[in-house]
Amino acid sequence: MKTRERILQASLSLFNEQGERQVTTNHIAAHLGISPGNLYYHFRNKEQIVAELFSRYEAQIADSLALPGERSLVAEDKVHYLETLFEGIWDYRFLYRELEHLLISDPALSARFRPFAQRCIAQGRAIYQGLVEAGILCAERTDPQALAQAMAINSWLLLTNWVSFVCSVVSSEPGQPLDQRLLRRGVHQVLALERGLLTPEAAVVVEQAMADFYQPLPGLD
Amino acid sequence: MKTRERILQASLSLFNEQGERQVTTNHIAAHLGISPGNLYYHFRNKEQIVAELFSRYEAQIADSLALPGERSLVAEDKVHYLETLFEGIWDYRFLYRELEHLLISDPALSARFRPFAQRCIAQGRAIYQGLVEAGILCAERTDPQALAQAMAINSWLLLTNWVSFVCSVVSSEPGQPLDQRLLRRGVHQVLALERGLLTPEAAVVVEQAMADFYQPLPGLD
Repeated sequence: MKTRERILQASLSLFNEQGERQVTTNHIAAHLGISPGNLYYHFRNKEQIVAELFSRYEAQIADSLALPGERSLVAEDKVHYLETLFEGIWDYRFLYRELEHLLISDPALSARFRPFAQRCIAQGRAIYQGLVEAGILCAERTDPQALAQAMAINSWLLLTNWVSFVCSVVSSEPGQPLDQRLLRRGVHQVLALERGLLTPEAAVVVEQAMADFYQPLPGLD
Repeated sequence: MKTRERILQASLSLFNEQGERQVTTNHIAAHLGISPGNLYYHFRNKEQIVAELFSRYEAQIADSLALPGERSLVAEDKVHYLETLFEGIWDYRFLYRELEHLLISDPALSARFRPFAQRCIAQGRAIYQGLVEAGILCAERTDPQALAQAMAINSWLLLTNWVSFVCSVVSSEPGQPLDQRLLRRGVHQVLALERGLLTPEAAVVVEQAMADFYQPLPGLD
């Protein structure tokens, strides 16, 4: 594996395990047994490493949010979308553990995050509209576009804040590593958004998935 | 007004307008035309001022979440709860503008925030259970307790992250003051959680409130 790629992979795992704030470029170089100079040859600073990791995360999420295109959505798609999105959040969990701090201290990342959020919400709306059009989500008393938009924004808020909720409200030790089982509960919570809006057939699929992804939250449940 | 109270009120308005990070105890003293020594006589440091403001916020939210007790809940109660909760968030918006940063840099506040969150979610669950018992929320295919818990957690995530969402995703300028109209849209979003779970009579009340609190989000809607 090329040095540049080794640096990126080591950085991602150190950031995820220890938190991005705690890890310096010197730590990364020492972890790989290379000189700081060799690291600087590939990346001028830690922000450049974070920027490259964020590009990969962006690409992974864009893939996860693609519509099937050639066919209508089915209830199982929704569960699959969420599973894939939470996998991406797990793979790059350092981003969400202290997102606000990361955006405050890295204005270039902050400038990229806003359009990324807007694209994700727009794509989320397209998915919810697809579910309405496929007759899976019923919006009897309400405009389907407004319904899809409210659902997309609420999903975004739950998805992007679940990691920090688990770390700050659920876990008793602030510095603890994130428990992947508690992350999975996030799927249950986002599926709860559409409860009551589903056709009876879709409700069976979603209630089963909610049971599968249920995980008690210590201190809360 | 006593000096101690003047310090608290000036701090709250400076924190809300400029952000807590940007405001030092020297700024607060200068703003009030008192000496830093006089301020230190009342508060040893900025954390003590934040701690006192947080106590007031905690008390205000505990009041806002009280159950009526002598009568069953009605659909209008839910709208009133959210209006009052968002008023509290507006009054102490500095807390939510950079909550994560505040909790990282102030471990004493962080230690108080976790039980505060747990109490609020428990009280939120009691309110949602009250709505189920009053027949306003219908949970046909699901356990009412699990429904109330999922709703309470999702409401907490929306309520506590709405300010930072508006500041980081909706507003184009990161340093801009928060627009109170955009905060009101948060009520619309939390009400959207129960769409489809309401009796027809309650749905009329909630859909009207959702229309009242609708506010387009620049860049998104």
